[in-house]
Amino acid sequence: MSAWFTRLDVTKNCLWASSGVFRRQQFLIRALGGTADQNSAVKMNASEVDAINIIRKITPTLDLSRYKGQAGKIAVIGGCREYTGAPYFAAISALKIGADLSHVFCTKDAAPIIKSYSPELIVHPILEESYSVSDEDKRSTANKVLAEVNKWMERFDCIVVGPGLGRDPFLLDCVSEIMKHARQLNIPLIIDGDGLFLVTNTLDLVSGYPLAVLTPNVNEYKRLVQRVLNCEVNDQEASAQLLSLVKGIGGVTVLRKGKSDLISDGDAVCSVSIFGSPRRCGGQGDILSGSVAVFLSWARHCISAEGDLDTRSMNPTVLGCVAASALLRKAASMAFKNNKRSTLTTDIIECLGRSLEEICPAI
Amino acid sequence: MSAWFTRLDVTKNCLWASSGVFRRQQFLIRALGGTADQNSAVKMNASEVDAINIIRKITPTLDLSRYKGQAGKIAVIGGCREYTGAPYFAAISALKIGADLSHVFCTKDAAPIIKSYSPELIVHPILEESYSVSDEDKRSTANKVLAEVNKWMERFDCIVVGPGLGRDPFLLDCVSEIMKHARQLNIPLIIDGDGLFLVTNTLDLVSGYPLAVLTPNVNEYKRLVQRVLNCEVNDQEASAQLLSLVKGIGGVTVLRKGKSDLISDGDAVCSVSIFGSPRRCGGQGDILSGSVAVFLSWARHCISAEGDLDTRSMNPTVLGCVAASALLRKAASMAFKNNKRSTLTTDIIECLGRSLEEICPAI
Repeated sequence: MSAWFTRLDVTKNCLWASSGVFRRQQFLIRALGGTADQNSAVKMNASEVDAINIIRKITPTLDLSRYKGQAGKIAVIGGCREYTGAPYFAAISALKIGADLSHVFCTKDAAPIIKSYSPELIVHPILEESYSVSDEDKRSTANKVLAEVNKWMERFDCIVVGPGLGRDPFLLDCVSEIMKHARQLNIPLIIDGDGLFLVTNTLDLVSGYPLAVLTPNVNEYKRLVQRVLNCEVNDQEASAQLLSLVKGIGGVTVLRKGKSDLISDGDAVCSVSIFGSPRRCGGQGDILSGSVAVFLSWARHCISAEGDLDTRSMNPTVLGCVAASALLRKAASMAFKNNKRSTLTTDIIECLGRSLEEICPAI
Repeated sequence: MSAWFTRLDVTKNCLWASSGVFRRQQFLIRALGGTADQNSAVKMNASEVDAINIIRKITPTLDLSRYKGQAGKIAVIGGCREYTGAPYFAAISALKIGADLSHVFCTKDAAPIIKSYSPELIVHPILEESYSVSDEDKRSTANKVLAEVNKWMERFDCIVVGPGLGRDPFLLDCVSEIMKHARQLNIPLIIDGDGLFLVTNTLDLVSGYPLAVLTPNVNEYKRLVQRVLNCEVNDQEASAQLLSLVKGIGGVTVLRKGKSDLISDGDAVCSVSIFGSPRRCGGQGDILSGSVAVFLSWARHCISAEGDLDTRSMNPTVLGCVAASALLRKAASMAFKNNKRSTLTTDIIECLGRSLEEICPAI
């Protein structure tokens, strides 16, 4: 939220309360209609934001004069011999929320299967794993992979890195180069799943890049904290530790998934706790990463189009995370109501559209 | 509309109004029940035609004595390693509107995936891309590809070229030969997607062929205008520019997709603006190309069967474009009503049948 929260000057009777962090956090709460008592803010607990209001502010209106691509072009880098569901979930979720085009860049083995899940996705069988490349061919293969991906890259509003990516060293080397190129082009990067494995081991890939968003689950967060802060996760000081983590990585946004989702870009910390479901079937993180990609693109567009003052004063990565978190939680709650213990990720995806419509009618 | 509009001689009190173009346009408006004031026609604005009436006139009646194939045999040339959704959308849309048989000619990589989308399609794994053919084998492979496609070709009422075709040079060379052969056989060609990329670079493929229909979207239209007219798109003079473009290409029909769809065969320009949806998810253009193929086949059949006078006096390519545009817009509107922002191309395809039934009940 860096420069976005400096307008209000709220003085408080404690040392911490007079800090910029506190002021920005208070501004966030007021500006977006959230609730948090002063004490909790002083204690650096996360403030619940009005996520519904944020979704309404950043979701674009639809009209007949728009053309294909204007509501978002998303790419997912993921999908290998082992994993095909995760990149599909991320990419189809982006479309179901309202993006116009959704691409997947995956290995040759994964492509036919991901394509078969849905004709709506554009699936590029481009990535290679070590087992299919001899040592002497690695350099030329890597160059070919990068050239193929790079020729598409400028078209994308946001790139999700990691769903079903796997951990093959050669593949991860190629993905590192793809990330560097995306960064040069100023394209936002959402990092999840095996992308977080890669980033945790090579923090430089995202360090200092304000358009990088990391979306760790419990275990991924644990590894990040161990690696960056050299300690264990402390849930008693969850917000303070998240702030330290973000600062330790440097200039990124982190969405820590949990009972409440905690979001920080190194200034304030906010939480999203509305809705939700007790079902923890695998794949929900992939819906989230695809959703962050869409809402982050919309938030950037909204801000650049000089939307209302509240929104313009905020970091689009945080807006994207808040909106995606709330929408997923609503869709999961709706799907759980219908399917109870048998709720699967595809059931939740089917509820994304209706959830968004209830919050923010299309017309 | 060339020879189809010469019967009425409407004299007007201005120089332009006395031209053949104006007269034919006025005839079109009256004959099909559309509305346009004289001034707008004089200014060469497009005239909204009564598309619903056209659909009713050209859609064949069904009766128990008919046999397989009489309601249309369509082929789609498209589908490569990268794209499989687009040819599926075009081919399945043709069936959903009422064609009896729908074939896809694609690469060997694409065929199993397109087959997996639906058992209704006949999918031929015939095309080849450069990466799978050595230089010395190219000539013999091209001959083999052409022989395979040609043995089927005479059976088709219409061929759609381009959905998900890709831009591989060897593959496009083969497709150029296929188009030449189709032209010799007088089979209508609907050109979309990468087929437009091919045609824009090699205008001779369609120039002077009255059964060629080009269906460009915003970007494809821009490239066509730049290539043919050597200028930029001018939306203030949209109709006049479309007329110039069609004349520049020579004797084809162009359907320019947009907020209103504009259609011209070089004589008059007509528009279709009814219904429609603000959702711009990728794939809707593929539905349109498959739909034009069916309606154009029906219009030709209707005219050759000496239908009513109004229809006989019109160019079947224009009738096909008008009908397809209106039906897609109705189906998209219906799908949007149900699915709002999460509307995908498959949702629209599911509404084609009901949309047609509402306009023109089967029995």
